[in-house]
Amino acid sequence: MKKILVLGAGRSSTTLIQYLLDHSFNNKWKIVLGDISEELALQKIKDHPNGKAVCFNIRDRKLRQQLIEDTDLVISMLPQRMHYPVALGCLKFRKHMITASYVSPKIKRLDKEVKKHDLLFLNEIGLDPGIDHMSAMRIIDRIRSQGGKITVFDSSTGGLVAPESDNNPWHYKFTWNPRNVLLAGQDGARFLYNCRFKHIPYHKLFQRIETVKIQDMGNFEIYPNRDSLKYQSTYDMFDIKTMFRGTIRRSGFCAAWDVFVQLGLTDDTYLIEQVENMTYRDFINIYLKYHKHLPVEKKLAAYLGIKENSEVMKRIQWTGIFEETLIGLKKATPAQILQKLLESKWKLDPDDKDMIVMLHRIKYILNGEKNNIWTILVVIGSDPENTAMAKTVGLPVGIAAKLILEDRISARGIQIPLLKEIYEPVLNELEEHGIRFIEEDREFDV
Amino acid sequence: MKKILVLGAGRSSTTLIQYLLDHSFNNKWKIVLGDISEELALQKIKDHPNGKAVCFNIRDRKLRQQLIEDTDLVISMLPQRMHYPVALGCLKFRKHMITASYVSPKIKRLDKEVKKHDLLFLNEIGLDPGIDHMSAMRIIDRIRSQGGKITVFDSSTGGLVAPESDNNPWHYKFTWNPRNVLLAGQDGARFLYNCRFKHIPYHKLFQRIETVKIQDMGNFEIYPNRDSLKYQSTYDMFDIKTMFRGTIRRSGFCAAWDVFVQLGLTDDTYLIEQVENMTYRDFINIYLKYHKHLPVEKKLAAYLGIKENSEVMKRIQWTGIFEETLIGLKKATPAQILQKLLESKWKLDPDDKDMIVMLHRIKYILNGEKNNIWTILVVIGSDPENTAMAKTVGLPVGIAAKLILEDRISARGIQIPLLKEIYEPVLNELEEHGIRFIEEDREFDV
Repeated sequence: MKKILVLGAGRSSTTLIQYLLDHSFNNKWKIVLGDISEELALQKIKDHPNGKAVCFNIRDRKLRQQLIEDTDLVISMLPQRMHYPVALGCLKFRKHMITASYVSPKIKRLDKEVKKHDLLFLNEIGLDPGIDHMSAMRIIDRIRSQGGKITVFDSSTGGLVAPESDNNPWHYKFTWNPRNVLLAGQDGARFLYNCRFKHIPYHKLFQRIETVKIQDMGNFEIYPNRDSLKYQSTYDMFDIKTMFRGTIRRSGFCAAWDVFVQLGLTDDTYLIEQVENMTYRDFINIYLKYHKHLPVEKKLAAYLGIKENSEVMKRIQWTGIFEETLIGLKKATPAQILQKLLESKWKLDPDDKDMIVMLHRIKYILNGEKNNIWTILVVIGSDPENTAMAKTVGLPVGIAAKLILEDRISARGIQIPLLKEIYEPVLNELEEHGIRFIEEDREFDV
Repeated sequence: MKKILVLGAGRSSTTLIQYLLDHSFNNKWKIVLGDISEELALQKIKDHPNGKAVCFNIRDRKLRQQLIEDTDLVISMLPQRMHYPVALGCLKFRKHMITASYVSPKIKRLDKEVKKHDLLFLNEIGLDPGIDHMSAMRIIDRIRSQGGKITVFDSSTGGLVAPESDNNPWHYKFTWNPRNVLLAGQDGARFLYNCRFKHIPYHKLFQRIETVKIQDMGNFEIYPNRDSLKYQSTYDMFDIKTMFRGTIRRSGFCAAWDVFVQLGLTDDTYLIEQVENMTYRDFINIYLKYHKHLPVEKKLAAYLGIKENSEVMKRIQWTGIFEETLIGLKKATPAQILQKLLESKWKLDPDDKDMIVMLHRIKYILNGEKNNIWTILVVIGSDPENTAMAKTVGLPVGIAAKLILEDRISARGIQIPLLKEIYEPVLNELEEHGIRFIEEDREFDV
């Protein structure tokens, strides 16, 4: 009987826990699920004979060490900043570890120590990061093994609402942490395009979009996602011409979101004065010039050069930001106020389904010939628990756990899933769960 | 014989040192001038019989304490971050201290201790902060003593080039620290207008301008300057309707500067890739969309909606940013690259003169009647050494030094010049030096 310790029972752990419990009979696993809310952990374990829920507080050092010592593998689904103490425990008690988070510099510095003890700390094995790396590396390795040379690497992902649940003019709902959506892009973006470095400051980001048609679902938009250049070293592509990573939204989203950015409503660095008695209409008016009698709507339209009856304006109107409704917060940043407003509007209803879209566009030269790859993954949520997000984050983690316990991964140290011995079995099993890229025969211009 | 220790012999100390030396015979003063460059200190002392130059390093604790112990008054013209160790020395050896800098929270916390030892640490007694406080408080106290109620307080300042030296399309040259000009406004601005709080993010700041005609010099522009709200507590004006502070530029400056802001060229938070072999033309192209054959100028015009033959475009063109000239830096942020370009263009020539403009616009109600005050200060530099900036920063400091040594200021603790016993004699003596506000009979709309 092998033991797996899963830390964190939040929304993105649901499918993972289900996967581990489902495979626990065949593999003789015992799953211990720790969460700060024991109730939540109990809910997810559902009285499964091979499952056990415990109350877990990251600051309780003794309990943390005890749980880690008493397991064979640790999966941390905690917020990223909490991985480090878990990693130290895994080092101390010689346990492998898995996370779906970006490798922090602090974790990276453990590499030598982790290798020395013949351990594997596998990170970035969720959706993004995770499936993006694995699906990209499968293509990259295939091209390279044929002797091809990649000239363009362009990869974008979006967490969206499924078409059947899409009933608002933004064609968007919160399917993951709303705060991350509010603050997305604030460091601007950088990428390589046709051998030129390109930088875009935050206040221009949502204006620098590309429109793409995806399958039979109509038009989507892609805006640049943070620092694409770092993927040159991740994928060892220093002689590439274009290296771009983007975020996917439904058509029309970016122009409307840009209104909030232009006004300054996504700023999270200072508190607004006297929020307590403020309405949303007062809030937006803070960012508009004073005028004796012009209403807020007209001032906004004139300020940003939007037509009053435009689609953009309809989206802004729909949020309720022009309404004389009390915000109901005591102290808040602009971003917190906007988040509160949008959380009531962009909420997933109990029977809503979410959707993940991931698109890779790659160009390469093979035997002097130019080749294009357009490959796309679309995943729709199964039910309110097993959302597309929970599935695409949780299944790769679960499959990796199985591979590690079966001793099928030889890599050691701090790793991300770039190696064939990892991505090949994970992607193959994901396909059995319907998580499958479809290649399309399309020309494109990037 | 009383001793005055002046720390820092930089550009803004010139007039101060001259003032102190000129008044040293009458007042029996000895002036000790310390600077990290002994040569610079020697230049400014000019063999004056009452002056002495020393090499001063803020990190040399022993020398610092020795110099402070051996003086009657300390004037720190050092960068703001260096005031604190000087203040601690002044506390230890019981010396009064003067700075022209904003009071830092660290300095503010010394208030009790400073009072306990019957000392005065007088700060913010330069131009801005300094003359702004004093001239405002003279008006405010006068109105209040008459029983008037101030409803609008609007105050703006600009460090500019004098009309006789104005020979470029920006009508601007660097007359103080270029870096501060590059980064000005990056935290955005907040103010109170007609009882409404108004916030402006950085990327909209230079679009939210007001045009004013000043004397016979034509049109100027005012853009909002940082946090105007904090002046509500500084001047005890919590029931005011409008509280605004601005920065003054020549007409046309803001629209052109906004081009740099919109592109992202004033960002100082990250290093550009491969600057070493980059030209200014390459640099601006980083921020523009790739296009097979459109030149940078056309891309810029289309991106920001500027006409190619517009005044804005002519100003951008004039900077040389479209030229294939090597930048000549190894590593640099966008702001550092832009600064290097502009330093060569906005340089004050040896016989150029600078100009300070300060405008207060105040409305108040007295005996049921509405009253307006429009009062303006214009100072032109006397010579390359005694610039308007050096005079308006240095003279108030020098006059305050005299007042303290003559024991004419009773206030103790951490102070800024809000009290009549300080501002009245300082402003009166400034008038003898031609630094005089002129009231104009003008209606205005703020």
